[in-house]
Amino acid sequence: MIPSRLIYKKGCLKVLDQRLLPHKTSYLTVRDASGTAKAIKDMVLRGAPLIGCAAAWGFPLELRARRPCSWKETGPLLAKAARVIKAARPTALALFYAADRMTGKAAGFIAAQKDFSSVKYAALIRALEREASEITREDRAACARMGALGAGLLKKNSIVLTHCNAGALATMGIGTAVGVITQAHARGKIKHAYACETRPYLQGARLTIWELQQSRVPSELLTDSMAAHLMKTAGINAVIVGADRIAANGDTANKIGTYALAVLAKYHKIPFYVIAPSPTIDTGLRTGGEIRIEERSSEEVTFINGRLVAPKGVRARHPGFDVTPAGLITALVTERGVISPVNAAAVLKNLRPSQKIR
Amino acid sequence: MIPSRLIYKKGCLKVLDQRLLPHKTSYLTVRDASGTAKAIKDMVLRGAPLIGCAAAWGFPLELRARRPCSWKETGPLLAKAARVIKAARPTALALFYAADRMTGKAAGFIAAQKDFSSVKYAALIRALEREASEITREDRAACARMGALGAGLLKKNSIVLTHCNAGALATMGIGTAVGVITQAHARGKIKHAYACETRPYLQGARLTIWELQQSRVPSELLTDSMAAHLMKTAGINAVIVGADRIAANGDTANKIGTYALAVLAKYHKIPFYVIAPSPTIDTGLRTGGEIRIEERSSEEVTFINGRLVAPKGVRARHPGFDVTPAGLITALVTERGVISPVNAAAVLKNLRPSQKIR
Repeated sequence: MIPSRLIYKKGCLKVLDQRLLPHKTSYLTVRDASGTAKAIKDMVLRGAPLIGCAAAWGFPLELRARRPCSWKETGPLLAKAARVIKAARPTALALFYAADRMTGKAAGFIAAQKDFSSVKYAALIRALEREASEITREDRAACARMGALGAGLLKKNSIVLTHCNAGALATMGIGTAVGVITQAHARGKIKHAYACETRPYLQGARLTIWELQQSRVPSELLTDSMAAHLMKTAGINAVIVGADRIAANGDTANKIGTYALAVLAKYHKIPFYVIAPSPTIDTGLRTGGEIRIEERSSEEVTFINGRLVAPKGVRARHPGFDVTPAGLITALVTERGVISPVNAAAVLKNLRPSQKIR
Repeated sequence: MIPSRLIYKKGCLKVLDQRLLPHKTSYLTVRDASGTAKAIKDMVLRGAPLIGCAAAWGFPLELRARRPCSWKETGPLLAKAARVIKAARPTALALFYAADRMTGKAAGFIAAQKDFSSVKYAALIRALEREASEITREDRAACARMGALGAGLLKKNSIVLTHCNAGALATMGIGTAVGVITQAHARGKIKHAYACETRPYLQGARLTIWELQQSRVPSELLTDSMAAHLMKTAGINAVIVGADRIAANGDTANKIGTYALAVLAKYHKIPFYVIAPSPTIDTGLRTGGEIRIEERSSEEVTFINGRLVAPKGVRARHPGFDVTPAGLITALVTERGVISPVNAAAVLKNLRPSQKIR
C-alpha cells in the first residue's frame, strides 16, 4: 500500500516525507502557507499534481494560523500566501493553477460579504477547505480517467519504460504515467516495466520501482544511461512519462532526462506518451522555449546520501527539468482525452470533458 | 598530479585503488596472475588501456610467484595465467591483446631454449618484464599521439562533453578522450568541458572531473540524464569518448551510456569522436553485434556508497557497456591516424604507423 501523501486536519497538514522513502514512512507537519511552500521547495513532497494539491491546502492553513480583524486584512494575507506558495518552485503549472483557484475562490467569497465577523471568517476557511478537497477529488478522478485512456493505447505484452516518478506518490490518485502502467497491467497488457533511476533525486529507484513492486508489475530498475541500450536490445515498445508544464503548442517540460528519452525513442521508433491532467497545460505560453526551467543546487548532484562523491570544489549543473518538443511526442493523454498529434491549446479548446479524440 | 596507476617492483604490483578516488589515494598489492585478475574484476583499476597494462604485469608476477622445474611445467603455468587473466572482464580488447602478446613472447623464448635452468627461468621473467614495460611505453606514446591528433580536430572555443573516464587514470599516459581535451586546452581551444557523472560507478564524478580540475580545464559535472538538455541549450560542439572494443566495421563498445550520447549528438548535429589506441580494434569481429557485453551485478546499481537506495528485493539491469554503430561516429582517432568515415579494419590495413588520413 502506498501511504497517504497528504493528510489535512483543521489547522495542520501532514506531509509524507518522500525524501526518506522507501526505507522510512515519516510525516512532516506544516501549519501555514510558508510551511507548505518550504515543504514543496525542499522536496518533502514532489510531483506536479501533488504539489498543486498541497499548495491548495496552504491557503486554509494560512487563514487558520492568522486572526485578521477585517476583510481588508484578509485580502493581503491571502495575496502574501499566494506569493510565498508560488515562489516555492517555478516549473510545475499545477502549483500556480491551485494557488490562483484558491485566491479566486476567496476573492469571490469576500466580495459577496457585507461585513466581517469571526463566523464569516470561519465560513471562508470552510469554503477554501471545500475547494482544496475538490482539487484533490478532481486530481483523483483525472488519474483514474488518464489511466484508462492510456492503458487503451498499449498493446498486449507491452514492454514499457518510465522516468522519474509520475505515480501515486506524485498525485492524490493512482498517478499519471505509472497509473497508465498499473491500469494496463490490470488488463494483462504489461509484460515488463523499466524504471529509470532518475538522477540526481533517484525518484525512479526510490519511488517508482517501489510502486511497481507493490502493484506486482514485473519490473526492473536501470540507470538513466542504460535507456538507449535497452531500447535497442530489450524490445521496449512504449515510453510513458508525466509532465510539469505543457505549452500551448504541446512542448512539454518534465523531469530532467525526459527530453533525452524522447529523442532516443524517436530514433528507435518507439511511441512516446505524455500523461498529464489538463491543469498542466499552460495556454499562456506559445512554445516550450517560454517555460522557466528551475536550476537547483550543485550539491544535490555532487552529494549522494549526504556524502560528497566528486572532488571538493567541483561544480555541477542541475537543471531540474527539460523541454521535449511536441514533435517528439506521439500522444498526450489528459483526463479530457487523448491528443495526437500534440497541439494542446488548439485541441483542448474544442474538447468537451471526457471527450476522446485521436 | 594524477598518482601512478601501477607501480611494478620485482614480484609485486601496486595498484592504485580507483574505487576510493578522489578522496583517498591508496594502493593494493597483487603478487600473481589471479591477484591481478581479481583487481581487474573488482574494478580496483579500470579503463581498457590500463587493464591491458596491468594484465601484462600479471605474467612476470606469476612466474616470480611460482618455481617450476622445467619448461614443461612453465608452459601450462603461463597458459593458466592467461586463462585467469582473460576471464577477469570480457569486453575490453586490450586485456586479451596484452595476454596474447605476453604468452606469445614467452612461447618464443621457451622455444629457443635447449634446456631448463633457474638462470634461464630468470631470463624469461626479465624478458616478460621488458615486454610489459614496452606495452606500457607504447600506451604512453599512443596517448600522446592521439591527444595531438584529436586536439587538431577541435575548433577554438570548443565546448566539449565526455563520458566515463577515458583519462590518465584509464591509461598509463595522458588518457584517450581526456588526453584530447587537456591537449586541446593547452592549445587554448577549450572554452568549457562537461563530464557526465557516469552511473553506476560514477567514474565521471570521481575521476574525470578531478583530472580536468587538475589540468585547470574549466569544467562542470552533469548527471547522464542532462546531456541532451545541455546539447540543446549549452552550445556543446563535440562529444569525445574512449572505447573498450571496436569491431572491424567501426562499431564501438564503450561504457554504458555512450550509445545514448552518440544518438543524441547525431540528433543535435554535434560531432562524435572516439579516441582509442589500435589494440582496441578487433579485426576478428565483423560488427558490434558480435561484441560480448558484460552484465555486472544488480547491487552495483541499487547500492550507492554501501547504502541501498531502492526498495529491498528490487532487481536492476547492469550492462557495463553498450555498442555505438559506426554510422554515429564522426571520426575514430587512433595513434596511427584519424579514421573518417569509420571503417576500422579496412583503413587500418592500409595505414603505416603514424600515417594520418582523413
